Amino acid sequence: MVSSSIDPTRPVTMADVETAMIDLLTRDDSVMAQAARHHLGSGGGRARAKLALQSAHALNLSFATTRAISGACELLHNASLVHDDLQDGDTVRRGATAVWKKFGSNTAICLGDLMVSAAYAAIASAPVDHLTEMIVHMHQRVSDVIGGQHADLESDCTTIADYNDVARMKSGPLLGLPVELCLIAANRQADVSAAMTASDAIAIAYQTTDDISDAERDIAAGGLNFLALVPGEMASRAHAARQHAADFARSAIAIAKNLPDGSGNGLVALAGKFVPVLEIEEAA
Amino acid sequence: MVSSSIDPTRPVTMADVETAMIDLLTRDDSVMAQAARHHLGSGGGRARAKLALQSAHALNLSFATTRAISGACELLHNASLVHDDLQDGDTVRRGATAVWKKFGSNTAICLGDLMVSAAYAAIASAPVDHLTEMIVHMHQRVSDVIGGQHADLESDCTTIADYNDVARMKSGPLLGLPVELCLIAANRQADVSAAMTASDAIAIAYQTTDDISDAERDIAAGGLNFLALVPGEMASRAHAARQHAADFARSAIAIAKNLPDGSGNGLVALAGKFVPVLEIEEAA
Repeated sequence: MVSSSIDPTRPVTMADVETAMIDLLTRDDSVMAQAARHHLGSGGGRARAKLALQSAHALNLSFATTRAISGACELLHNASLVHDDLQDGDTVRRGATAVWKKFGSNTAICLGDLMVSAAYAAIASAPVDHLTEMIVHMHQRVSDVIGGQHADLESDCTTIADYNDVARMKSGPLLGLPVELCLIAANRQADVSAAMTASDAIAIAYQTTDDISDAERDIAAGGLNFLALVPGEMASRAHAARQHAADFARSAIAIAKNLPDGSGNGLVALAGKFVPVLEIEEAA
Repeated sequence: MVSSSIDPTRPVTMADVETAMIDLLTRDDSVMAQAARHHLGSGGGRARAKLALQSAHALNLSFATTRAISGACELLHNASLVHDDLQDGDTVRRGATAVWKKFGSNTAICLGDLMVSAAYAAIASAPVDHLTEMIVHMHQRVSDVIGGQHADLESDCTTIADYNDVARMKSGPLLGLPVELCLIAANRQADVSAAMTASDAIAIAYQTTDDISDAERDIAAGGLNFLALVPGEMASRAHAARQHAADFARSAIAIAKNLPDGSGNGLVALAGKFVPVLEIEEAA
């Protein structure tokens, strides 16, 4: 993955991360490679790669380690999207046709598998002392997120506590992983559990907020949605969801801002998105 | 993965490998854990773990490294079985109900993903100098096998050369990987390509032989089968398949027996299974 033309003193850019991901997925012009290019080419916020770039910069990690962590986390996230779309029957992803819809279910299964494998090849390119620990932690968070996706698909949550568990497991692991891997690479293992707690809280804030727009559809389909678990008119349920999200977001901010050397500032910014809505609403 | 009660001077047993795999897949009594136990509990020859144990012993690798390589290769193989059964619609595996049929497609997708991830956590537990190289090689072989599975599903091979390519890619990578990882761990990188060539040849011998029993069904369904590519009566096509298999098996034996310190003896024994059939036939 390391090109000799790269100046290792310049910061890693998102273009470096994209190149690293594509290099690990496309060795030819096969249908698999086309599917990989279609999926990654459809955009996406690359929130996890950005979190890794921010934390790695704060912790002064090397070019190769920064790129390795960013690429690995984004590959895992995109693997989960390719397989989740197939599992959920979602036909559109980021405005483009979902991989399974465009290339078939078999290609979607194969591409997701390849992306999981590529994530580990990416992380293995990090020239660090703690590689084994990073990989073991990565598998732990992958297990969490797969458990969350499975629980979401099979779920019959009836309490907010159960809902929080599924939301936390479904989105928390891959939001926290970029920061957690940077902390391990920087030999700050003692701070990993705080990053996990913060990202789990952001996941709940994110999922609860996301549920507001999907409420009518989810409730009609009997799917998991925060608004299905609270009483009242839809407007007051949406208000409760925003309040729930803001509570967890504030808790995430309180934890993430204490991560070493500002390495949680990306998480703080992410959590901040779920606070102002309520502050504005309460001020009105 | 390392238990303090293990005597690291005794040889790794298959029970050690089973425990390592289960530990990486089951953290609770969830449906996912049940599915993992169901699949691994249904048996299987564990041919790849056995190849790793043989090569690792020949190359004098440590207990932890031997267990890591055996577990990683067997996890990748079982991931491929769980996803292949879903893709091919096969309802029975080793006499038991296939995971997707018993637990649903969503669970099968999630379990296969978890097994790929667990394979990398397993290999990361190898206390060796060449871990990055081993992981990068593992991803290369996983890419090969996913490409092979995809080509098999989408295939319209019309020549024996194309057939050989698909057969080689579909089964060769995970047959060779146990030996190849042992060679890298033992700092015998120069011998890896010979192990790859030998395992690719065994894969062709295996697939061609396997095609004989599936010929009627595959040909009726328009599926990929060696016997569909040769002319004549079914009996003479089967003879041609046995000859094709034996040619590749002999070539595999010639290469594998020259691997260092007898590290290819497991491959030699495996290839040997595809030779006697023809020798007996010719002697008759």
